[in-house]
Amino acid sequence: MEKVRTAEELAAQQREISVAEFFEKNRHLLGFDNPSKALLTVVKEAVDNSLDAAEEARILPEVFVKVEMLGEDRFKVTVEDNGPGIVKKEIPNIFGKLLYGSKFHQLRQSRGQQGIGISAAVLYAQLTTGKPTIVESKTSPRGTTKIFHIKIDTLKNEPEILKEDEVKNGLKHTGTRITLEIEGKYVQRYHSVDEYLKQTALANPHASITYISPTGEKHEYRRAIKKLPKMPKAIKPHPYGVELGILMRMLKSTPYTKLSSFLQNEVSRVGSTSAEGICVLAGLELTRRPQDLTHEEQERPLKAMQKVKLMRPQTDWLSPIGEKNILEGLKNMIKAEFYTARTREPVVYRGNPFQIEVALAYGGELKEKQDAEIILMRLANYVPLLYQASSCAITKAVTKTNWRRYGLEQSGGKGMPHGPMLLLVHMASTWVPFTSESKEAIANYPEIMKEIKLAIQDCGRDLLRYIRKQARARRESRRLDIFQKYLPLVIENAEILAESKKKHNIEPILEKVVNADLIEEEEEEEIVGGENEEE
Amino acid sequence: MEKVRTAEELAAQQREISVAEFFEKNRHLLGFDNPSKALLTVVKEAVDNSLDAAEEARILPEVFVKVEMLGEDRFKVTVEDNGPGIVKKEIPNIFGKLLYGSKFHQLRQSRGQQGIGISAAVLYAQLTTGKPTIVESKTSPRGTTKIFHIKIDTLKNEPEILKEDEVKNGLKHTGTRITLEIEGKYVQRYHSVDEYLKQTALANPHASITYISPTGEKHEYRRAIKKLPKMPKAIKPHPYGVELGILMRMLKSTPYTKLSSFLQNEVSRVGSTSAEGICVLAGLELTRRPQDLTHEEQERPLKAMQKVKLMRPQTDWLSPIGEKNILEGLKNMIKAEFYTARTREPVVYRGNPFQIEVALAYGGELKEKQDAEIILMRLANYVPLLYQASSCAITKAVTKTNWRRYGLEQSGGKGMPHGPMLLLVHMASTWVPFTSESKEAIANYPEIMKEIKLAIQDCGRDLLRYIRKQARARRESRRLDIFQKYLPLVIENAEILAESKKKHNIEPILEKVVNADLIEEEEEEEIVGGENEEE
Repeated sequence: MEKVRTAEELAAQQREISVAEFFEKNRHLLGFDNPSKALLTVVKEAVDNSLDAAEEARILPEVFVKVEMLGEDRFKVTVEDNGPGIVKKEIPNIFGKLLYGSKFHQLRQSRGQQGIGISAAVLYAQLTTGKPTIVESKTSPRGTTKIFHIKIDTLKNEPEILKEDEVKNGLKHTGTRITLEIEGKYVQRYHSVDEYLKQTALANPHASITYISPTGEKHEYRRAIKKLPKMPKAIKPHPYGVELGILMRMLKSTPYTKLSSFLQNEVSRVGSTSAEGICVLAGLELTRRPQDLTHEEQERPLKAMQKVKLMRPQTDWLSPIGEKNILEGLKNMIKAEFYTARTREPVVYRGNPFQIEVALAYGGELKEKQDAEIILMRLANYVPLLYQASSCAITKAVTKTNWRRYGLEQSGGKGMPHGPMLLLVHMASTWVPFTSESKEAIANYPEIMKEIKLAIQDCGRDLLRYIRKQARARRESRRLDIFQKYLPLVIENAEILAESKKKHNIEPILEKVVNADLIEEEEEEEIVGGENEEE
Repeated sequence: MEKVRTAEELAAQQREISVAEFFEKNRHLLGFDNPSKALLTVVKEAVDNSLDAAEEARILPEVFVKVEMLGEDRFKVTVEDNGPGIVKKEIPNIFGKLLYGSKFHQLRQSRGQQGIGISAAVLYAQLTTGKPTIVESKTSPRGTTKIFHIKIDTLKNEPEILKEDEVKNGLKHTGTRITLEIEGKYVQRYHSVDEYLKQTALANPHASITYISPTGEKHEYRRAIKKLPKMPKAIKPHPYGVELGILMRMLKSTPYTKLSSFLQNEVSRVGSTSAEGICVLAGLELTRRPQDLTHEEQERPLKAMQKVKLMRPQTDWLSPIGEKNILEGLKNMIKAEFYTARTREPVVYRGNPFQIEVALAYGGELKEKQDAEIILMRLANYVPLLYQASSCAITKAVTKTNWRRYGLEQSGGKGMPHGPMLLLVHMASTWVPFTSESKEAIANYPEIMKEIKLAIQDCGRDLLRYIRKQARARRESRRLDIFQKYLPLVIENAEILAESKKKHNIEPILEKVVNADLIEEEEEEEIVGGENEEE
C-alpha cells in the first residue's frame, strides 16, 4: 500500500532556498543557457560594470577586454577598466553575492540595475570550471592593488574568499581588473562578443575599447568624442506611478515626522502647496506622523495624489546618446549614403521616465545585401541587446510599422522590412523593464511601443524624402539624357520637321517617343508609398 | 564643475537587495505584468499548491475556487483544498517568504518547483491593495483551525504576522484555505481564470474542482476517474548531467566519508562496480574522504563519470497523465469525431528525465470554426500554460511540423495549422525548464523539441489515417450513389446498349461518364498529403 504523508512529514522538507541556489539551477534566466551565449554574457556584464564605474566617477572610460581560449570549450576572460576602483571591503560582496549593488535602490539611469549581473558571471565560472574569479582593484593612483580570489557559497549566497592579497606593483592606474575562467564557445558572427563590443563602441562614442579576440586579433575602438555624456541623476518616485504597497513601506520607514514634509521630500514634484492639497483631499492633518497612519488612512494619500494636479516626473535627468553622437558613431561604423537620427522628448511609463532614440543608415555599403532584412540594433541604457529579439518591444514596434510608406520593401506591410538599411533603437530610462534577469529584451508596455513607433516614423519620413529625392534626381538626369539624345536628331532633321509640322500636329507624337523612354525607367524604380501615418 | 565621485562615495551606496524587493520591482517576471494576468496568476498559484498538497498526501483532490469582484479593479480570491493542511510553524514561511519550499531541493515531478509562486501572490496582494493574505489550515480531522493574517516584510524577505488565531469551528476537514485581496481584471475568454480551470480539470481527471466566477456562475468539474496518478518519486542527480560546481558542493557537504560510498549514495545509477571504475579512472582511492579532495582532484571523478558506462537516469518515476485519462478528459470536454493520444517513453535532457504526451480531438463541435487556427493546449506537470505561447518549445514544435502531411491546412507548410482540431501537448519532468519565474513557457532545448515533434507525428499519422478513411468512405458512398443513379437508365436502355455493344466498345465511354461525376467530388475534397516524415 502507498504510504500516506502527513502534514508533519511534509513540513520536515520545507527549507529556505538561497537566491544563489535558485539562479544556479535556473541559470538560463541569467543568460547562461548555452556556451556561446554564456561567453557573451560574461563579457557583457563585466564591460557594463566597467563603463558604469568610470562614468559615475566622471572619468572617460578606457576598457580593455581579452578573451583567451584555454581549451576546446574553456575560456579565460579578462576585463580591465580605468574607473575609480572598488574599496577593499566591498569587493567580496559585489562579486560574491547575488542581489547586492548600488543601483537597485536608486531611480537613476545606469547599465546595471539589479545587482545580479557580475556575481552571476562569478557563479557561472565556478559552476562550469570550479575556478574562483580573480578581482584586482586600486582606488588611489599611488596606492596598492587589492587582489581577491572569490567564489560564492551558494547555500548561503555569501562570498567565499579563497585568497586575499595586496601588492605594490599591481594595476598601473586606478580601476578594476576581473579575470574569469569559464566554459563557453566562441562564435564570430551574430550574437558574438565581437558584435557586442562593436555595437557598444557605437553607442558609447566617449569610450575607448581595446579588444583582443580568441584568435589573437586586436580591435581598437578609439573614442570619437572627448566629452562624457551628462551624468544622469537619481529621482524620487512620482506620486502618479507609486503603488500602494510601496507607499505604505515608505510611510513606515521615513525619517520625517510630519505627513507634509514626507510628501515634499520623499516623492517628486510635490511642493508645499501640493502637499497641503493632498492632505486636505485625504482628510489628514499636515502634521500627522506618517508612521502612525492606520491601514485605511494610508490608502487615502495615495488616492488624493492621483487627483491633485502635479508636474510630470523629471525627465531632464535622463542621458540619451544624442542625435549628433549617434550619427557620428554610425558614420564611423558604416559608409552609407544617407543617415538620420531622432532623439525624442522624454515621457513616462508607470512613473518611470524614459526616452527613445532612433537612427538609421541607408544605402552605400549596405547595398551589398540589398534584398536581405534590414539590420536592427537594439540598445537599452547604452547597452546593445543581442538575444531574444522576437520578445522585445523594439522588434515589435519595427515589425508593426508599415515600412512601404517609407520606401522599403515589406511583405504584406508588416514584419521585418527588407532593404539596404541599418536601424538603431535606443531606450534610456531610470528603470528599463526587461523581460528577464538576463536583460535581453524590453517588455511590451504600450507607452514604450508608442514612443518607439513615433520615433521610427520621424526617421522614416526623412528616409522617404531622401529616397524620393534620389528617384527624382535620377528621373531628372534621365530627362536630360533624353533631351541630349534627341536634340542632335531634331537639329539635323529640323527642315523635315518643319515640313511635317505644316501637315500634322507632331508634338504629341514626339512626346510619346520621349516619354516611352522615361516610363521604362520609372517602372524599374517603383514609386514609393504615400505618407499616411496615423494607424 | 561636475562633482567627481570617489570609490569611497560609491561604496557608501552599496547595499544588499532582498529577493522580495527584487521581485516587487520586477513583478512582471512573476506573471504580474497586467491586471488580468495577475488575477489568473493568483488563482493558478493557489490551485497548483492545493493539487500538489492533496496528491502528496495521497488524497483525491477537491478544490474550491471563488473569485469575487469587490470593485471595478479589485477582487477577492478564495481557494480551499482538502489536502493534509500545513503545520502551524510552517505557515508564515510558506506564504510570507519568497524562495521557501519543499520542492526546490528535490528532483521530483511536481507543479511547484521554485518556492516562489504563492508568496509572490501574497506580495502582489499587499503591493496593490495593502491587504494581508488570510491563511486558514487544519491538519487533523478533529483538530483546531489555525488562522494567520500574513504580509511580507519586503526589506528582509521575512513573514510579518498581523494576526494569529486558533478556532474550533473552522474548516470542516483537513486542508488549507487562502484568501487574497488583489487588484485585477476579469476576462472571460482567452487567458482567463475560467479557461485555466477548465484545462486544469481536463489535465487532472482525478480532481474535483468547484469554481464560482465573479459573475456568480458556478462551474463544477467532477472527477472522471477515482484513482490518483502514481506518486512521482524523487531521484538523485545523474552523473552524466551533473555540473562541476554542483559536484564540488556535494563532495564538500556529503555525510559519507569514503568516495566510493559517496558515489553509490549521492548520485543515481552508480553501484559498487561503477563506483570502483570511476575511482580507478580518476586515479583516486575508493576510501578517500570526499571532503578532502583538492580542487584538481575534484575535477577527476566528474571526467571519469562521463567515461564509465552507466544506466540512463530513472525515468519510471515520472507520472504522465496517461493516454486513457487524457482521452477520457478530452471526450468529456468536447464532442469531436475523432480522438487520439500518445504518451511517449521517458527520455532525458541535461540529466533531467522528461516525458511528452500529445493528444488531439478532430471534427464534430470543432467544425464550427473550421477555417480558424487549431486550438493548442500547452501543459507542464499537469498545469495549463496560458501565456507566452510564442516563446514556448511546444508552440515552436507545432509550428515547425508540416501539418499538410496529416491532412490539415497550413500556409507554406509551417506556422500554426488551420482546421477543426484541438491539440494538447503535456511535458512531465522532474525539472521543467521554464523561460521565466512565472512558468508560462518551456525553454527551447533540442531534446525536448525533438520529443514533442515525434509525439505530434505519432498522433498526426493517426489523424491522417482517419481523414483518409473519411474521404474514402465519402467516395465509396458517392460511387454507390452514382451506381444507383445510372442503374435504372442502364436497365431501361438495356436493349439499345446491347445493340451498340455489337458495333462499338462502349465500356470506356460509360466509365468516362461515371468518373466525371466522381472526379468532381474528389476535387472538392482535396487530396491529403503523403506521409514522408523525416525532416
